Amino acid sequence: MQHTYFQSIEYHPKEQPIPLDEVLAQLAFNQDGLIPVITQDTETKQVLMMAWMNIDALKRTLNTGRVTYWSRSRQNFWVKGETSGHVQLLVNLSFDCDGDAVLCEVHQTGAACHTGRRHCFYLKVEEDHVRVTGEYQKVEEV
Amino acid sequence: MQHTYFQSIEYHPKEQPIPLDEVLAQLAFNQDGLIPVITQDTETKQVLMMAWMNIDALKRTLNTGRVTYWSRSRQNFWVKGETSGHVQLLVNLSFDCDGDAVLCEVHQTGAACHTGRRHCFYLKVEEDHVRVTGEYQKVEEV
Repeated sequence: MQHTYFQSIEYHPKEQPIPLDEVLAQLAFNQDGLIPVITQDTETKQVLMMAWMNIDALKRTLNTGRVTYWSRSRQNFWVKGETSGHVQLLVNLSFDCDGDAVLCEVHQTGAACHTGRRHCFYLKVEEDHVRVTGEYQKVEEV
Repeated sequence: MQHTYFQSIEYHPKEQPIPLDEVLAQLAFNQDGLIPVITQDTETKQVLMMAWMNIDALKRTLNTGRVTYWSRSRQNFWVKGETSGHVQLLVNLSFDCDGDAVLCEVHQTGAACHTGRRHCFYLKVEEDHVRVTGEYQKVEEV
């Protein structure tokens, strides 16, 4: 019972850190073995993108310090910026209260979005319309 | 082909907003009819939580200005703060480049997390341990 585990550590003393492997084993990956990841620019605090990791992508991210997702379309690891140079260097990684989401704070080089925009959330709702916002410069990464 | 639709509007002119209903009809809800939602504090820029909406929760959020998720555990609408008073007033709502994630910028009253913490991402990885961080005051909301 993953939820029970995370309830049991809600008020765990800050002074007694928990082994990482114990927490990793309890994370709530979905039926495809994936967990949603929010990536935030550590300097501007802008939310850059949302993507997915499996357990191995998560471990690679932690071990290398380079944010590595799991590409659902390509069914492969996706080392962010590998082809574009727009890498994400990991600054902080956190899990949420019920262990079903990851927050990565990163130092972002260049654009996080494949459209060349700094972030992916450029489709802004304005009353009954959506405005396509954001400055961009087209990049090659897919 | 939802992805094709979002590709087609990547460089749509900012001066020509797109009808909201057209975009809503193309969003990439998962097999359970849900889309992940990132909620960010508009003042502090802190990422408060990640939860899910179905199309009706999304429309309610837009129509009422009160962030309303879909509770997967209760299988019902979850008007944030309805029982705790810790409401989220919507300031901005955006979709990402492939229409499979929502970003809500909100004015947050009190704690976003059910543990009484300001945000949910309090389990912080430090090398091979996880530290349980964050100031809290226990609240009633479930």
